[in-house]
Amino acid sequence: LSAVPKIPSAFIMNLPARLQDLPPKWAHFCLGIDRFARTDLGVDLTGKRVLAAVSGGADSTALVLICKYLAPSWQAEVEAAHLDHGLRPQSKTEAEAVSRLCEDLAIPLHSTGLDVGEYAREARMGVEEAAREARYEFLMQVRQAAGAAFILTGHHLNDLAEDQVMRLIRGAGWPGLSGMPAFDADRALLRPLLLTPKSELENFLRDLGMTWSLDQSNQDQAWLRNRVRAEIVPRLLRENPGFLNAAAGLWRMGRLDEQYFSGECRVPEPKNGQVVLARDELESQHPALRLRRYKAALDSLGPGQALCENLLNLDQAFIEKRTGKIFQFPGHKQAEIRGKKIAFTLNKTNG
Amino acid sequence: LSAVPKIPSAFIMNLPARLQDLPPKWAHFCLGIDRFARTDLGVDLTGKRVLAAVSGGADSTALVLICKYLAPSWQAEVEAAHLDHGLRPQSKTEAEAVSRLCEDLAIPLHSTGLDVGEYAREARMGVEEAAREARYEFLMQVRQAAGAAFILTGHHLNDLAEDQVMRLIRGAGWPGLSGMPAFDADRALLRPLLLTPKSELENFLRDLGMTWSLDQSNQDQAWLRNRVRAEIVPRLLRENPGFLNAAAGLWRMGRLDEQYFSGECRVPEPKNGQVVLARDELESQHPALRLRRYKAALDSLGPGQALCENLLNLDQAFIEKRTGKIFQFPGHKQAEIRGKKIAFTLNKTNG
Repeated sequence: LSAVPKIPSAFIMNLPARLQDLPPKWAHFCLGIDRFARTDLGVDLTGKRVLAAVSGGADSTALVLICKYLAPSWQAEVEAAHLDHGLRPQSKTEAEAVSRLCEDLAIPLHSTGLDVGEYAREARMGVEEAAREARYEFLMQVRQAAGAAFILTGHHLNDLAEDQVMRLIRGAGWPGLSGMPAFDADRALLRPLLLTPKSELENFLRDLGMTWSLDQSNQDQAWLRNRVRAEIVPRLLRENPGFLNAAAGLWRMGRLDEQYFSGECRVPEPKNGQVVLARDELESQHPALRLRRYKAALDSLGPGQALCENLLNLDQAFIEKRTGKIFQFPGHKQAEIRGKKIAFTLNKTNG
Repeated sequence: LSAVPKIPSAFIMNLPARLQDLPPKWAHFCLGIDRFARTDLGVDLTGKRVLAAVSGGADSTALVLICKYLAPSWQAEVEAAHLDHGLRPQSKTEAEAVSRLCEDLAIPLHSTGLDVGEYAREARMGVEEAAREARYEFLMQVRQAAGAAFILTGHHLNDLAEDQVMRLIRGAGWPGLSGMPAFDADRALLRPLLLTPKSELENFLRDLGMTWSLDQSNQDQAWLRNRVRAEIVPRLLRENPGFLNAAAGLWRMGRLDEQYFSGECRVPEPKNGQVVLARDELESQHPALRLRRYKAALDSLGPGQALCENLLNLDQAFIEKRTGKIFQFPGHKQAEIRGKKIAFTLNKTNG
């Protein structure tokens, strides 16, 4: 560890101590993020312990700093978590930088290392998917151990725009196409920066004299997200410099529609890994609502996103009364058309 | 005209004369397009005269041929229309090729030339927009003059995917993001090939020994559509070879949602270029439906697509009761928040 280059802590020594000590522009900026979490997402952080996921990149460095400034008004305790994915030689240096940052900010850090490459080989997954899964698993464990109410991640508006493009590519339907949620109650996951452009986070850090590591793994063009980031989103931004605002608008509309459809399209709780929808009831509904009920039934069985095309194919077969027809969905889920119903089942033997 | 290179008509002489003379694969292909128009779009062409828009490219050459094969079962008369945009030196040659094609197929052709560059300067429009507007204006005129019930265009699934990407870039909401309609009753416009990939149209022509011109203006990278076609969609297809199917699925879901929302979100007919929505009624609705009522009110006033972000901003101001606040929308339309209502107005003086 003695070979790790030291980051001068002078920056952090000079950091404004409290929200009210920040330049007004940046105090306002932090309060905007607070308002987004409270008002738009309806998440109350008062008196809670929160766990910030920190990679050491600009996004999560800004996140931890913003949490630090907002913590007194939340009356919240902020802790941090860092997973060293062990995928690149620099990752140890980055882990050390995160450790110093948290030390200087007096934020307790939960940190560990993992060989994600090996994890991926064992789980027979792509490295990109394995890294994501290992990271979330780690965060969930730390949250439990630390007794934190929420995990906060640094996902920002550029990430959201990339996510929308990836969902378009993959064939998501609506409102899934509008992108990742900013609050996922099931996973206690909060993304308070989701409508904040990356450039603002970087300006915030720069104005405060903070440094950061280049985001882990951002350079590897073998990863879909990085190709979307490097090659596709910049072209969309060149065509419309306001594209990030458009992405934010699309996301907002998606959230409203999700809320609306979830009110209109209730499904029963799964019993023994199965949800059954009755034909009579389905037939009486508009197909736009039927598709959302299929989706809700599948979602209730666990992770794995159904594609738009597959939901449409299921509905077509339902209308044509193709009894006995079975459709497979991601996450080892399936739907079987029967005489008077459709049965959605989690098929564990396939796993 | 004597300098125009002749296209050997031998190809066309050898064309199968009737649908039942086609190789089964291609007869099936034509019948699939017929089924799409009849069943999916609910358009009945029986006994009608139809006008096919023909540029001479693969898409519209396939369109006119498919119409020719389906016309007997439709008991329909097929005519064709071609506008020489006069934007490139080759456009006269292309017009002549269209003329020979229609002659050989015994399809009456309505054809004229226009200096779209001059049209654009006079109308103070971009050439891309001016070309589109001039083309549709011409088609409308010919449709009236020819007594045709519908205009048919050769837009195909690749065009649709490009359209979705362009709408994403521009900031369309949902269901607008799902792309252009396949049937536009107001303009009597039918796009029967909209879910057919371009490659299938080209294979159809190749197997029948047909030739075609390179699509007019496809090469000009100053046009947004051509950049999307050349630079963005190929990247999406590289990430997901099934991306065109995904685009078709998204479109189908969009059509269902459009139908659903239009049933849930009725607005009064415009009176003197104005539609008024009452505050009470708006407040009692879910915001997802309010946004669609705003959109429906704006659409009823004429062309010009409202962006998602602007609809959301209007709703925000409505909720905050910002009386007197006016929002401008494309197509010289505006919305004004008043005490007990929102007034949507076509502002002709702005035109």
